[in-house]
This record gives sequence, C-alpha cells and structure tokens, in this order.
Amino acid sequence: MQRKSKDLLWWPFTQHNLVPVDCVTVIDSRCGESFSAYKVKDNKMMMIPQFDACASWWTQGPDSKLQIELARDMGYAAARYGHVMFPENAHEPALRCAELLLGGIGKDWASRVYYSDNGSTAIEIALKMAFRKFSLDRGILLDSDKSITNERNIQLKVLALKGSYHGDTLGAMEAQAPSAYTSFLQQPWYSGRGLFLDPPTVFIRNGTCALSLPQSIQNCHLSPGDKCFPSLADVFCKSRDSSAAADLYSTYISQQLSEYSVSSNIEHIAALIIEPVIQGAGGMHMIDPLFQRVLVHECRDRKIPVIFDEVFTGFWRLGVESASELLGCLPDVACYAKLMTGGIVPLAATVTTEAVFEAFKSDSKLTALLHGHSYTAHAMGCSAAVKAIQWFRDPSTNSNLDFDRMKLKELWDGTLVNQLSSLPNVKRVVSLGTLCAIELQAEGSDAGYASLYARSLIQQLREEDDIYVRPLGNVIYLMCGPCTTRDVCTEQLSKVYHRISHFNPIH
Amino acid sequence: MQRKSKDLLWWPFTQHNLVPVDCVTVIDSRCGESFSAYKVKDNKMMMIPQFDACASWWTQGPDSKLQIELARDMGYAAARYGHVMFPENAHEPALRCAELLLGGIGKDWASRVYYSDNGSTAIEIALKMAFRKFSLDRGILLDSDKSITNERNIQLKVLALKGSYHGDTLGAMEAQAPSAYTSFLQQPWYSGRGLFLDPPTVFIRNGTCALSLPQSIQNCHLSPGDKCFPSLADVFCKSRDSSAAADLYSTYISQQLSEYSVSSNIEHIAALIIEPVIQGAGGMHMIDPLFQRVLVHECRDRKIPVIFDEVFTGFWRLGVESASELLGCLPDVACYAKLMTGGIVPLAATVTTEAVFEAFKSDSKLTALLHGHSYTAHAMGCSAAVKAIQWFRDPSTNSNLDFDRMKLKELWDGTLVNQLSSLPNVKRVVSLGTLCAIELQAEGSDAGYASLYARSLIQQLREEDDIYVRPLGNVIYLMCGPCTTRDVCTEQLSKVYHRISHFNPIH
Repeated sequence: MQRKSKDLLWWPFTQHNLVPVDCVTVIDSRCGESFSAYKVKDNKMMMIPQFDACASWWTQGPDSKLQIELARDMGYAAARYGHVMFPENAHEPALRCAELLLGGIGKDWASRVYYSDNGSTAIEIALKMAFRKFSLDRGILLDSDKSITNERNIQLKVLALKGSYHGDTLGAMEAQAPSAYTSFLQQPWYSGRGLFLDPPTVFIRNGTCALSLPQSIQNCHLSPGDKCFPSLADVFCKSRDSSAAADLYSTYISQQLSEYSVSSNIEHIAALIIEPVIQGAGGMHMIDPLFQRVLVHECRDRKIPVIFDEVFTGFWRLGVESASELLGCLPDVACYAKLMTGGIVPLAATVTTEAVFEAFKSDSKLTALLHGHSYTAHAMGCSAAVKAIQWFRDPSTNSNLDFDRMKLKELWDGTLVNQLSSLPNVKRVVSLGTLCAIELQAEGSDAGYASLYARSLIQQLREEDDIYVRPLGNVIYLMCGPCTTRDVCTEQLSKVYHRISHFNPIH
Repeated sequence: MQRKSKDLLWWPFTQHNLVPVDCVTVIDSRCGESFSAYKVKDNKMMMIPQFDACASWWTQGPDSKLQIELARDMGYAAARYGHVMFPENAHEPALRCAELLLGGIGKDWASRVYYSDNGSTAIEIALKMAFRKFSLDRGILLDSDKSITNERNIQLKVLALKGSYHGDTLGAMEAQAPSAYTSFLQQPWYSGRGLFLDPPTVFIRNGTCALSLPQSIQNCHLSPGDKCFPSLADVFCKSRDSSAAADLYSTYISQQLSEYSVSSNIEHIAALIIEPVIQGAGGMHMIDPLFQRVLVHECRDRKIPVIFDEVFTGFWRLGVESASELLGCLPDVACYAKLMTGGIVPLAATVTTEAVFEAFKSDSKLTALLHGHSYTAHAMGCSAAVKAIQWFRDPSTNSNLDFDRMKLKELWDGTLVNQLSSLPNVKRVVSLGTLCAIELQAEGSDAGYASLYARSLIQQLREEDDIYVRPLGNVIYLMCGPCTTRDVCTEQLSKVYHRISHFNPIH
C-alpha cells in the first residue's frame, strides 16, 4: 500500500519528492482521538494506535462513543435518504441541523442557514452575501437589471488581517494577504483584493502572556500592564475596552480606512473577514481579541458587513461553541465546517442575519443567490451535524463542559504549558480550548512555511511517541476533541515537552 | 416543516419570494430513482413516490439495490475509519478508488488522482495543474523562487466555450463566458479570464438530427449531408474527421487563436476547458463532438493542456463511463464528482497524466500543489465510489450494459423522442445516455434562465404525474440512473410527452 500510494495518489499540500516510500503512513482504522497505523516495531509489522494530534486537519471531535453513534446514524441516513435535492425542498436532518445552528452558534443574531460542502465554499458564499448587502445599503444596485455592465468600474474589496487564511479556492484566496500560498506559481490569478491590516498577537513565552504589536502600530503610549497579562483569561477581559490599547487600535484602524478611501474612489471596502481569535493555517497565531472587537465596531459604524470565518474556530475548538463568545461581539455572516459534523463527513454552513437574506429577495430569479453545490444539505452530513452538535453541548455526553455549560474546562495543563514556553528552543506557545500550539525557535532558512527544520522532531514524535503530528512550518501543535479527557491531553503534552527539551536539529 | 423551511433555510439558486409555503416539497425518504414526499391527494396527506427527474442535481445513480449496498458501506466506513488525514497517508478506500478511476475513466492516459469535495474544487485544482504545466513548458517558470513577483505581468487565460459552466466558486466562474450567473450582482469579482468560442450544437427537431452553426462560423461550404444526420450515432462517427465541417472548425479555431495572440503578448491561452459533448447547466446543449475533437487537436499542437470537465458527463451519464469515449480523444486533466459516489455523498477527483504531476515535483515544498480540503479523500466518499464505480460497470449488477459492456443500451424510446421533437411547442430535444432534455419553444421575456414560462407545466408534472422536474429556464429534462430500466424511462417520457402536447401557458 505504501508503494501503490506513491504511484497513484497526489496528496494535497505535499511535495512528493520529500516523502520516502517507507514514511507513508498506512492507516487501518480510527477510534476516537487515535487512528491505527501499520508500523514496524521490534522488527515486526504491527498495528499501533497513533494520537491524531493534528485532528486530521482540524476536523476531528469524536470520542470513541460518539464515533459509534455517528456510524449508526450514517448507515441510517444513507438507507433512508441517500441524497435528495435541496432547493425548494426540506428533509428532517437539514431542518433539524438548521434549528440547532440557529439556536447555538447563531443565537441572538442569525436567522438563516445556507449549506455547502466545505470551508472554502462557505467563505465564497459569505463574500457574495456581504457584497450584495453592502451594495444595496450603499445604493450601488438601485437598478439591478440595467447596472450589470456599468458597475464593473466599481471594485469591492475586503478588509482582512495579514496572516489569515480563508480557504483554497480562488475567491477565498483573494481575501488573504500575499503569502507563499498566493504566489504566481500557486495562484496565477491571485491579485489580493483587500486592505490587509497588521494585527497584534498574543502568546505565552517564559510563562508570561504577552502582547506583541506589529511595527505599523505605534506603542509608546502603552504601559506594561497593557502588554503583559497574568493569564490568557485576562486578555479576553471586557474591561480592556477602555484601555489605552483600545484607543491605539481604534486610531490605527480608522487611519488605515481613511487613507484607503482617499486613495481610491472606485474601490469600496465591502466586507470585513476575520478568523476570530486564532488564525489557523497562517501558523496558529492568537490575535488580540480586543483588536478584533474594535475592528468589528469600526466596521459596524461604517456599515461594512462583518464575516466571521469560524471554519477552524467553531464548535468548541477554542473551548466555546462559537469563538464570537470569546470576542464578545457578533458578525452578520459566519462560516462553519470541519468540526460541525463531528469530523465524519464534509458539510459547511454559512449562517446569516435576516437583513442579509433580505438583500436577495425580489420577484426575479436573477437577484437570488445563484450559487449551489450538488450535494447541498446532504442528509448524511446534516444527520452527523445534528448528532455532533448535541453531543458536544450536552454535559451528559461531554464531561469537559464546565458547570455553566458554556465552555470547556482547561485541557492543557497550565504548569506544563508554562514550562514548555520557557524552553530555549521554543519561541511561543498558544494554548486555548482543544489547541496547544508551539512555535520552535528557528532562524533564516529554517523559518517559514517551507521549513524542514522540525523534520527529525516530527519523525521522533510519530515513530517513538506514537503522536501523529503534522507541522505548519515550525509550528507544532496538539489538538484534541471537545470531549477528550484532560488525562489524555496531559500524557501527550508531556511527551511533546520531553521531545522538544531534548531537540537538537542536525544541519 | 414547510413553514419552518421557509423561515430558517436559504436555498441555493432559489428566489424565496417565488416559493409559496405550500409548494415546499417535504421529502421523507429516497428509494433508488424515486423519493417519497408528503402530498395532499384526495384531501388526505399521503406519502407519494416522486420520480426524481433531475436526479437531484445530476448526482443520482443508484437503483434501490445499490442504495442498500451503499448504506451498509457507509455505516461500515464511518465505524472503521471515521475520517482520517490524507496527505502522506493511505487507507484502503482511497487507494482502491484511485485504482478503479485510473483503470476506468483514466485508462490509457491518466496516472494520478487528486481528491477534493465537489465539482467546483475539482475544476479549480485542474486549472492550477494546467497553468503550472503550461508555464513550465513555455519556460515562464525557469527560476520559480525569484519569479514570484515579476510574473504578475503575465496573464494566463483559458480557452472555453460559450454556454459552458464549470462550477460556482470564483476560479471556476472565471472560466466561463459572461452570463446571468456572472453579473456584478452575482459575482462582483468576475472578469472572465478566457477566450470564449461559439460552439456548433446538435439537436433533434421534427425527428431529424441537425447541426446548428453559430453566426461566427461561416457555413457556405457545408453540404446538407454535413448538417443533417440519420441518427445521433452518426454525429459521433469518426469519418467526419475528413469532412468539410472538420476543415471549417479547424480554420475557425486557428483564426481565433491567432487573432488573440496577436492582440496581446502578455496574455497566454494556458488551458483548454470543455464539458465534453453536453454542456449541462448552460441548458443541456449538445456540442458537435467533431468541433470539440478538432479543438482538442488544435490545443495539443500548441502545447495547451486540455481539461475535460466531466463533473456532469462522467460515470455513464451520457451512456459511457467517460464522455471522452464519445469524443474519441483524451485530456491531460479530467474532473469527476456527482455520480462518482453513486449519488450518496460529496467527493470529487481531478485525474491527470504523469507529465502534469511531474510539473509540481522539486525539492521544495513551495512548488507542491498547495491546495487541499480538510475532508480530502474521506473514507465514506471513497468507499461509496468504490462500490458505485464497480456496480455500474458490472453486467451482473447493471443490466443496461450492452454486450460489449462499454456502453448503456438506449434508455429513451427513439420513436417517442422523435414524436416529442415534432411537437409545435418543442424547440429541440437532446437524448443521450441517461439524459433526455426538451427545450420548449418560447420567445422574448419567456426565454432565458429567469423564465417562468414553464411554471404551470412543472407544477402539473410534479402534482399530477409524480415526476419531480426542475427546469433550466425553458429546458425540461428527465434523468435516470445508469441501471434504471427502459420501462421506467418510457413510462416517465410518455407522461412528459402527454403533458407537453397539451401544454398551453397562460399569460
């Protein structure tokens, strides 16, 4: 199977020349947080459970009990529904899933669910929604039938953060700042249709939680108390809204928006798109939530629709069902995928306010949102989401839920996290909800997405510790499910601590 | 459920104002080609089977036996694998599916399978592949690391056909000619990055199979024998390669390509993309296969990579496993989705030659294809594809397979098709494989995608004939599975014939 894989498959995000045939992991099966792979141990071929530390590209949530439940539901949904057409139709799984979404992550703001297949499509749909809403609010589309050609002069742009990543399709890529992913080599059609701001980040180093400001934001007015925090919880504290940092952010954002609108009168910032709190694919950077909150308010003031890309952050990934709870503000449109089905099958949802939905209503089909995928709202995906959403938020099935049931208990041992962050070869740690990310200290050609610096460490973790880690450049991370026990997390984190503290890359 | 659907859901491609609450179809279940919907009949609420004539957006293939098999396989795959990470890994369903694809639709040309989630993503991946291959062949990317910014001056374009449709994401949309789908209202970022040719079409009218040339192709040299055919089979005849039509097409295509390259030296036609034989979403138009074959040869001569978009046409939809068999020529890259899983769950594959794959190999991760979706090669999708691909091509499970096993028997009764095509309110009929499409004769505001002209006919078919039809503008079509019996097809087609022959729209 290793040989065949090398000969027939084309893996995503993989340089095939860098994968020796004996490094191909042949997976036999999965059970909850681990999968079983064939490995040679003690000169024998064995099946060894591997802790799936990358949560299979951040999709995974099930413990072994939920996986069994999901399997039963998948068989049932396939037998009962197969797949059936969605537009103008309804079936119970799609409706039930919509109710759970609107009563959960959409509570108090959303009223409509638009289904699609994955994060990228959910984002493209969100952009189309936001642009229509903006255009209507600004009177750009007063006479929609006649305006089709004239308005090509108007250029709608997004406001987004550097280092953010919103998916791999071209529309989603246009909403990210230039990066290794957007080069001509990868995306000959990319132009970067946005104003991309430099965000301040937060991380733990030497046991301290610190704010790091980008060069573009002056920092002479900030006191040490504005830049260091006793714990991560303090970073989320709402009292920071009246701090000097809030003023600094507000000024920076206003200034950037003014400069942009002065420099061009045909370009409009027509949507804000952010990954709330954690920018995933960009390297697991925690953005100062105060900065994002101020940004949302500045956009609200300017009637710019706000999109939260919760494809990675949604469904307890960061310890709460929706990361908007951490930010303390709400979007107009939000995108969910990955963990939504519990990690069993692809499905995405773009969730919106009624005001956004209204922007598409008329008596003509031509103003409807003409976007859809064949398997929209497929019954298996919706059934899985119904089960998973309920499972994660029910204290009788998810013992990690805190007493108030609105957030997960701390899963990564705080002392261990602080010790890790104090190792000389560790640059920063971010630990939140089901995620614990560690950036290794590396310089020059060892830095960046293409770095192979950590290769031997990864190999040790996989081979000797049975932790299946997949790095983002020099960022190594552990990710568990919303129901994974703290004991399991501590066991894995201890192994990683041990490996990193002895890590000495050979050049 | 009808009320709730209207309140919570946002359907794709649907103007909600045009869907009265009592017209929402509530689907209870599916069995093979039909689904059961709640309907009021004789003043009672009943569950009525509806023939799924739009094959739920062209995804459906299973007969009731296959659906049972698929349901069992879905439960098994979910219990055994859930979902597991794909890059650098392998599991049996993904490998087995790749073998079946390369031994079937990829036979004699393809050697690599790239999985994704749906047709749109498969197309975006195909475009990236073709552009890289073209750029390397033309020496545009001699020094990939340094060239990242310089090459923004070079504009890569596609060669495509007017009326084609390759998916809803922005990258896929860029490969289609301007249409109702690409207006500023729908796609503020659309620019149409291609040279779009006007293709000749073929259809049946008044019982005759006729060629229709667009204005841009002069036709004074064509004899009646070049423009009328005794049957559809004659249109596919290879002897047409030496006809006057072939010369005409070749001249037209060469001329268009020359004019384009003269007018711009920074724009390159870097890929050909076509839907082989039938352009689906554009209105079920059959393109003269001779034209597409000549087009492919002209591109080969110029080292322009060829992409077949088989998302709709693939897996027996047109009576053969791959529509390239009908065209009589092969692509460099081909995209599959929809029917690939038998119609149970989303999965897509972009299948390529080894030469295209080689264009991404180096010692740097930065030249790898940096595109991937979280559920890439998910085990349930691959398991379904393995079952469906084998089921459709095995004469012991698919009794529609002809003796030579390479194509389906005629499913739509030829006499009925000819009669339909002779009705005064029918403009054209296209009948091929599992598809029988009928365009109604309509003028002015009744024509085009937004037309509501056929609304009462659709309503009658749904309510009184229990055929769930969903039109494309004024095109009504019946679509069955590869294993649907000819008797079932005849029954449905007779009902449609009856309705259309009595159709008299009220204005």
